[in-house]
Amino acid sequence: MKQYLQHDPWCIIENGFHRDYNEITESVMSLGNGRMGQRGNFEEGFSGKTLLGNYVAGVYYPDKTRVGWWKNGYPNYFAKVLNAANWIGIDVEIEYEKLDLNLCEVHDFRRVLNMQEGYLERNFVATLKSGRQLQVSAKRFCSIVDDESGAIRFSITPLNFDGKVTLTPYINGDVSNRDSNYDEKFWDEVRKETGYGEAYIEMRTRKTAFHVCTGMMVEIMQDGQRIDFQSQPIRQEKYVANRMTLDCKQGQETVVYKYAANLSSMNYDPDRLVPLTRDYLKRIVGKGFDRMLYEQKQAWADKWKTNDITIGGDDESAIAAAQGIRFNIFHLNQTYTGEDERLNIGPKGFTGEKYGGSTYWDTEAYCLPFYLSTADQKVARNLLLYRYKQLDKAIENAQKLGFRAGAALYPMVTMNGEECHNEWEITFEEIHRNGAIAYAIYDYVRYTGDEQYLVDYGLEVLIAISRFWSQRVNWSEAKQQYVMLGVTGPNEYENNVNNNWYTNYIAAWTLRYTMESVEKVKALNPERFTALCDKLHFREEKEVSKTKQIVEKMHFPYDEQRELFLQQDGFLDKELLTVDQLPSGQRPINQHWSWDRILRSCFIKQADVLQGMYFFEDDFDAETVQRHFDFYEPMTVHESSLSPCVHSVLASKLGLRDKAYEMYLRTARLDLDDYNNDTEDGLHITSMAGTWLSVVKGFGGLRVKEDSLLLAPYCPEQWQSLSFKVRFRNALIQVTVTQTEVSIQNFSQQSIRIVLFEESVTIEGSGLKVVELEKEA
Amino acid sequence: MKQYLQHDPWCIIENGFHRDYNEITESVMSLGNGRMGQRGNFEEGFSGKTLLGNYVAGVYYPDKTRVGWWKNGYPNYFAKVLNAANWIGIDVEIEYEKLDLNLCEVHDFRRVLNMQEGYLERNFVATLKSGRQLQVSAKRFCSIVDDESGAIRFSITPLNFDGKVTLTPYINGDVSNRDSNYDEKFWDEVRKETGYGEAYIEMRTRKTAFHVCTGMMVEIMQDGQRIDFQSQPIRQEKYVANRMTLDCKQGQETVVYKYAANLSSMNYDPDRLVPLTRDYLKRIVGKGFDRMLYEQKQAWADKWKTNDITIGGDDESAIAAAQGIRFNIFHLNQTYTGEDERLNIGPKGFTGEKYGGSTYWDTEAYCLPFYLSTADQKVARNLLLYRYKQLDKAIENAQKLGFRAGAALYPMVTMNGEECHNEWEITFEEIHRNGAIAYAIYDYVRYTGDEQYLVDYGLEVLIAISRFWSQRVNWSEAKQQYVMLGVTGPNEYENNVNNNWYTNYIAAWTLRYTMESVEKVKALNPERFTALCDKLHFREEKEVSKTKQIVEKMHFPYDEQRELFLQQDGFLDKELLTVDQLPSGQRPINQHWSWDRILRSCFIKQADVLQGMYFFEDDFDAETVQRHFDFYEPMTVHESSLSPCVHSVLASKLGLRDKAYEMYLRTARLDLDDYNNDTEDGLHITSMAGTWLSVVKGFGGLRVKEDSLLLAPYCPEQWQSLSFKVRFRNALIQVTVTQTEVSIQNFSQQSIRIVLFEESVTIEGSGLKVVELEKEA
Repeated sequence: MKQYLQHDPWCIIENGFHRDYNEITESVMSLGNGRMGQRGNFEEGFSGKTLLGNYVAGVYYPDKTRVGWWKNGYPNYFAKVLNAANWIGIDVEIEYEKLDLNLCEVHDFRRVLNMQEGYLERNFVATLKSGRQLQVSAKRFCSIVDDESGAIRFSITPLNFDGKVTLTPYINGDVSNRDSNYDEKFWDEVRKETGYGEAYIEMRTRKTAFHVCTGMMVEIMQDGQRIDFQSQPIRQEKYVANRMTLDCKQGQETVVYKYAANLSSMNYDPDRLVPLTRDYLKRIVGKGFDRMLYEQKQAWADKWKTNDITIGGDDESAIAAAQGIRFNIFHLNQTYTGEDERLNIGPKGFTGEKYGGSTYWDTEAYCLPFYLSTADQKVARNLLLYRYKQLDKAIENAQKLGFRAGAALYPMVTMNGEECHNEWEITFEEIHRNGAIAYAIYDYVRYTGDEQYLVDYGLEVLIAISRFWSQRVNWSEAKQQYVMLGVTGPNEYENNVNNNWYTNYIAAWTLRYTMESVEKVKALNPERFTALCDKLHFREEKEVSKTKQIVEKMHFPYDEQRELFLQQDGFLDKELLTVDQLPSGQRPINQHWSWDRILRSCFIKQADVLQGMYFFEDDFDAETVQRHFDFYEPMTVHESSLSPCVHSVLASKLGLRDKAYEMYLRTARLDLDDYNNDTEDGLHITSMAGTWLSVVKGFGGLRVKEDSLLLAPYCPEQWQSLSFKVRFRNALIQVTVTQTEVSIQNFSQQSIRIVLFEESVTIEGSGLKVVELEKEA
Repeated sequence: MKQYLQHDPWCIIENGFHRDYNEITESVMSLGNGRMGQRGNFEEGFSGKTLLGNYVAGVYYPDKTRVGWWKNGYPNYFAKVLNAANWIGIDVEIEYEKLDLNLCEVHDFRRVLNMQEGYLERNFVATLKSGRQLQVSAKRFCSIVDDESGAIRFSITPLNFDGKVTLTPYINGDVSNRDSNYDEKFWDEVRKETGYGEAYIEMRTRKTAFHVCTGMMVEIMQDGQRIDFQSQPIRQEKYVANRMTLDCKQGQETVVYKYAANLSSMNYDPDRLVPLTRDYLKRIVGKGFDRMLYEQKQAWADKWKTNDITIGGDDESAIAAAQGIRFNIFHLNQTYTGEDERLNIGPKGFTGEKYGGSTYWDTEAYCLPFYLSTADQKVARNLLLYRYKQLDKAIENAQKLGFRAGAALYPMVTMNGEECHNEWEITFEEIHRNGAIAYAIYDYVRYTGDEQYLVDYGLEVLIAISRFWSQRVNWSEAKQQYVMLGVTGPNEYENNVNNNWYTNYIAAWTLRYTMESVEKVKALNPERFTALCDKLHFREEKEVSKTKQIVEKMHFPYDEQRELFLQQDGFLDKELLTVDQLPSGQRPINQHWSWDRILRSCFIKQADVLQGMYFFEDDFDAETVQRHFDFYEPMTVHESSLSPCVHSVLASKLGLRDKAYEMYLRTARLDLDDYNNDTEDGLHITSMAGTWLSVVKGFGGLRVKEDSLLLAPYCPEQWQSLSFKVRFRNALIQVTVTQTEVSIQNFSQQSIRIVLFEESVTIEGSGLKVVELEKEA
């Protein structure tokens, strides 16, 4: 855990340069706009610890997989998020001495990520070896208005000298991935152009043949005036630049404005990328940096209007909490905007290259509720459409594993719908992901009321997933039940188990929900249903009857004595210990124990049975949930960043407020405090949605049932107040809860009826409802 | 399956050059002497399909492992059997045209491995592009008398020309492993020397720093006379040679004798390897090729005297069977001679580089009985000592996995005692190997009567293995029994199962045998026992009482209704199918099914429950074995080369002679007929012992009980007779069985008492006993 960043409600602040933590800070201060993203690297370059990262959404590389022993069915490649051409670079030379914070003295260093307005700023004074001292200020952003571009204001002020300053804004396409399996380079150069204060380089990925043109235009200001400058074009392999040497005077600020754009062949004619990039740049240069920044602030203000969460309290911990939750919301919005249904939410977003792929079950299980509640309905819908469009690949994937036509197994990790993961116990066995994709359809329809989605897309996906489940179970003569053998549940500290309760439950649930959806679609649009049956060769009677049999006769491991659903068959054969019996030196167990010891132990990586009780809470009474929480949570080591949030929500529901807060704290500042020592690789983007869940579904008690929004908020005793905004079916409300009252502000014109603490409450358009809280016993 | 090699009782014959099968033939015709081995490569080089291989026993390289996702406890390296310097090379140029069978016409090609006398011979006529025709004969062997050397007689006879022939015998150290994870080279050059008709190169392995000096001396004969020749030394990087140009006349045979030696720093002072190699070569050149070959024949004759198996019958299938069994015996003797307890039996011996490591549980489970029955007692003893000397590493290995001091887990694959394997389901879970190492001690003591071995070495190993088992089980409150969770049994088509019956059984057996051995050692040598207790901190009372508890309360999965031990918990939840229900196009399933499908299925890779009934046959009555055989064998796909032999032995015992013969056939000519399409990688050396088992323990019914040799031989109806030799406690007997009688020849001076068909029979020294067989009903 590191706490070198300042607490502030709206900004992430590094005061003084923390050289050894630079890669962590780079991750934390990443910028993105859904289309591209950029780590918090230095414009002028840095010879110390740094991980360069510019990522262009949807552009990936199929890296050769690395496996110990090949298993049939493994995918041939692992889709890597690619480091693309460096567009921020501006080399600075002062009388032939390069500015490099690794090689000079640095004073008054301050790097600030402004989350309210969406930009990154850096100021410092450098004293070079020559003794020359200069003040540098850099400000940049990835525009969410012009979302294929970024702009930089980079200024230099000599403090103790007059002299020549050489500036070389460049674009360097000769980048590689640190996370490459065989140290290969992934990009080839296609073409490049340079002109007066401008330069373009078009690169193409090997194998996947994505083209990306990165272009830049440069302006220089001195004394507040745009100046003409000598621009010497430089063209090297995979590299273009403009070199300019300026006379600078002591105290005089020289400003470089560098405008850059990344245009990819996903969105443009690959043959015209260079001229299109030039046009794009001309347009934004026409706006100018200040106008662009103004628009950026406005756009972020709009986002915060529907997204913000505030935590009241003057003490440090409340400020830290407020900063933590905003940090998460900020990055979720930077990663995914829902503009393009071909994109998804990578585990590291645009903040690092680790893991590869862009889509895990995290999207459906953790991220979807965030976008449902904070963004336009189409954002969540696009996340669903992403899977719909990859249905064919999911069917292919199931076929590769031996399933018959029509059954779909969505991949564990993917970029384009093809499976990329290759550990057999995950790839082939962690199949509950398929259930989460069905659940997301349910979640979306429940939240939005958009039943038409079922008609147009949802049912098709549900039928394919259900067909998978129907084939994946087998009849056990011994048990006289259907069993599901050889699976890995959400708790990845168990592999290849039989009858993981969660998987069996979500499978049976999918089958039921599919049957319900069949009825729904038949009722809503019989013609469409008939057409679908034809398309899918869906023989309703036969498939529904098999489905019913499975649902009725599914095996759920259960212990009569404890009245407990068991995580899997044989779970009670383990030595049952609790986490507090583990010596602290042995935690996290995944860093201290051999894999077999982890597997044999009862310790649970992340919610498994409890994940099911979280998803399907209405199927279980509170005593049942409490009993399972009491049994499983103490065995849970929470070594996945996706674990504490689910427990926090459940604990809130069970009235275990201390536990809920403890669990919330474990995710809230995961990256800001580098809790797991891995923030340098990038941020845990998808688990950020988990933090939001623990606040809004946990502390806020937000649910949607029968077309109503339900709330049961409380303010953790550590805070003075908690306030969050929620969108629900064209309404926008803000819920504020203190230790004594709840107030609900309706920002919409029309009135909204909600269920507050199980009582129906109506709030007029633009109205405010205040309810006093009963004191707790 | 390929059947291009000729059937012959003593030779493996390739008539006509089978270019596309060359790598297969190279494997089949490998030569070895326990210290070094050489694939059947061509002396003159070959630009076609070839896998060069010269292997020096014990010399390995710790190749970087390649894993998909690292698991704690994985070893850092994978020990590779190394391709060492090429010592057989003799480049041949005829008037500046290189002789290369890939580039010229080849007639009358014949390559013969003579197993009776232990050499490889090759004859052919080549017609070069120039039209020049020459007769070439090559004969070579790896001497088992001078076991660090090989000798080659290579002769050329111009058939239609007079002209200059340039011969370049060389040693090329610039070799690599095809089976390298990252295409690295493993050898550096240390020094080289050349002289008149001689050359030396000393190479050192990277990381492990083994030094190997490979040297050669060359003689030339023309017209039956040794001649002086001009020798031009060549020294290049990692390469030394002597180039000589000779005038040859039509019809005149020019013979090169090339003597080579590989001396390694495992056996010699690394600073003096070059002079020592020169001395070594001088000595063997002094003998000369003919004398060496004579000694080779004598030495092989001695081996066959105690090893041979003959199969009577004039038809092709009897000849093929005889050839097959001799082929196996021949290669087992080439691979391991028991001279050096640091060596072991690699899965490919000296015939290929695949798999790496030299020691698997195959040694104890399959190979040991072969050496026990065919070689001096010290050979088997050295196999045991190999493990004894690696006990410390096995204890370290267990510690790495979290076991407490004193518990030993022997590695799945090793070269020097350290684990090299890295699939978690094998490395950490296929722990039954530990039981096989205990069983081997029992097997050795039972066979030899050498109880002193327990005192000196055996008990120490048994205590360490038993400590592992005691820690590896845990008490199940639910079952009120000890359970063993998370294991992989011999049937590797199941991973991470609970309570694999075989593993639980061999664990409990080890615990019992250790307790017995404690008593035995106490009785034989109380002082030694006390000293051992001190050394091992063995607290007899406490450990024995825990051990007894575990033995008493061990869980063995069992089905009451079927009266069947179950392969593992939950086995009956599977869909129970038999192999004959599988479409043939889906076999072998490991090439057609995804891994999860294999795991979920009931299909069994190799004997698992039945492996236990094979090892511990006296614990189960015949009906029980039959019941288990009837249940499990039909589910067994025998996709390990180690599977059929165990089933063959059991089937023989159960009187299922057709089954026994069918299973025998599946191993007998595995490599000769390239049954699995992988002989090109090298031979399945350890499974060769399995074939021997199915003949001698299966058809022969050989057992040892209470210090007596038991026999119950029968001759498969497909043959006229079967004859095998067995050593037992200083006696050597030959058992011959026809369809009507058994005769036993005692080659020893003293009489021997054996149990034949459960009746005690005494055979006088040098006597013969003939017993008529009852006709089968």
